[in-house]
Amino acid sequence: MTKTKLVMSGLVRPLIEPRLPDWIEPHFFMSKEEALALAPQAEIGWFDMYDKGDMATVINAATNMKWLNSIYAGVDGMPLVQLKAQGCVVTNGAGINAITIAEYVVMGMLTVAKNYREVVRAQERREWLLDSPGKVELFGSKALLLGYGAIGKLIEERLKPFGVDVTIVRRSAGPNTLTPDQWRAQLGDFDWVILAVPATAETDGMIGADELAAMKNSATLINIARGSVIDQDALVTALQDKHIANAFLDVTTPEPLPADHPLWSLDNAHITMHLSGRAQDKMFVRSATRFFENLERYRQGAPLEPMVNLDLGY
Amino acid sequence: MTKTKLVMSGLVRPLIEPRLPDWIEPHFFMSKEEALALAPQAEIGWFDMYDKGDMATVINAATNMKWLNSIYAGVDGMPLVQLKAQGCVVTNGAGINAITIAEYVVMGMLTVAKNYREVVRAQERREWLLDSPGKVELFGSKALLLGYGAIGKLIEERLKPFGVDVTIVRRSAGPNTLTPDQWRAQLGDFDWVILAVPATAETDGMIGADELAAMKNSATLINIARGSVIDQDALVTALQDKHIANAFLDVTTPEPLPADHPLWSLDNAHITMHLSGRAQDKMFVRSATRFFENLERYRQGAPLEPMVNLDLGY
Repeated sequence: MTKTKLVMSGLVRPLIEPRLPDWIEPHFFMSKEEALALAPQAEIGWFDMYDKGDMATVINAATNMKWLNSIYAGVDGMPLVQLKAQGCVVTNGAGINAITIAEYVVMGMLTVAKNYREVVRAQERREWLLDSPGKVELFGSKALLLGYGAIGKLIEERLKPFGVDVTIVRRSAGPNTLTPDQWRAQLGDFDWVILAVPATAETDGMIGADELAAMKNSATLINIARGSVIDQDALVTALQDKHIANAFLDVTTPEPLPADHPLWSLDNAHITMHLSGRAQDKMFVRSATRFFENLERYRQGAPLEPMVNLDLGY
Repeated sequence: MTKTKLVMSGLVRPLIEPRLPDWIEPHFFMSKEEALALAPQAEIGWFDMYDKGDMATVINAATNMKWLNSIYAGVDGMPLVQLKAQGCVVTNGAGINAITIAEYVVMGMLTVAKNYREVVRAQERREWLLDSPGKVELFGSKALLLGYGAIGKLIEERLKPFGVDVTIVRRSAGPNTLTPDQWRAQLGDFDWVILAVPATAETDGMIGADELAAMKNSATLINIARGSVIDQDALVTALQDKHIANAFLDVTTPEPLPADHPLWSLDNAHITMHLSGRAQDKMFVRSATRFFENLERYRQGAPLEPMVNLDLGY
């Protein structure tokens, strides 16, 4: 029997290799060069790399690949058109990081509300503050949640017992729901605008100067989606002018953010370096579990989960 | 008609004076000396002061007082024996600060879990961290909640959708409940030990060297009760020896914590300067609303709420 060739990063090898079934012939790479050399053989590929450009180059070389797996939720760095043309399905990490990212969003809201950063700095000065540098309660506040996938749903669940009035955006109307053509006109109602959308052509720059101008001066913008969802120059201006109160940015354009970028030093910009999904120790374990479930489905010819829609890009 | 004399701090005057009924004769003080001079006349007193010793002196002078009101939840600085002897009832601020304190506790857990303090410091250095300095999820963790009053209940509600398994301590047995004689033997089961008890003789030093030794090395102790609930010297040792992972301390002994105290500079001590209840802008409004509700009850001879049990001290 000809074995099915799997090409994947050596970083996850210890979690994967011992559990691989007989019908798989694994090849592990430790560098971009090794990945490029192995890619043409791959029927199944797992090509996650920190540099998205390198990853796309390797994927482009995997011309026989039928299934591409990724630990990440975002597939915006992948050559989706080519993958579709060669009949390759893509499974991503949607949901793998959702719990920790939802936790991070609530942490962001609370630390901004209480201005916890100033408390950290006061401790470093050994100064006993006599009043709280932040006096906002989540209780009774209103949040607009753009993006209602795995992460958005977990954020909503966690915010409800805090007494946050959460409005979601989706195509089908419903309670506490705005449709994609409605939310812009209502932006001025919200204390929190939370971006949890996939990075697609449709969401590119969806928060620009007009949207920032429509937000409350006291509002906080939270981005755990992709930097490209925000017009970052417009955001810097809005923060400098105190047109909005705060931005809590897990993602920026570009990443890493250059050391001389103005966002770093703005009092009301909170930069968390795309760490939200990494603030857990179960990412690889969860991803391996999912991979083996999908490997069995692949053998049986059953649909893989979750399968990325290569037209929509998520 | 003889009016009822009310003596209270001038700090809350703008919220109170315009709404006082005819049968009240208000006197406002702006200093301890004014308070001491007015105290003997008071039938109703509201003597909150930052210095608990000054406050006790003034209350001791209010020998005709029948109702003492306070914005604070803790009444441990008050001469409860004398107040009981003179037939004075005490209403406190239990619940007034509960929402923001519960929010603060969740913030504390999340910031410790993700080691957010190191993210704040990295932003100051303009350094793009490549991995999260904290990798704990609240999801799937276990919390022991000591103290199940207004604050404890709100903490429990907020933690449940995070997937935190919350065990409470109270006299009546029940699901997820340990009784006061059971919890010490189970301390090693918990990732979080949260102190939300009133400061009484019973809770004084309830967390000492033995309890700290029984906790997991990876556990975090959170104190939003009173510094006296913890044997602070034993805590410093436990933190220095990494016997527990972290302490998130809204309260300390004494307050303010002296600048040369070792807690300030321990990597795993998070000091928040008794700010948790002040991290809101509704404290005075809520307290005034409650005062007026009680004023009407007082006129009618109805029981005031919430009335402190002067024997139990909460």
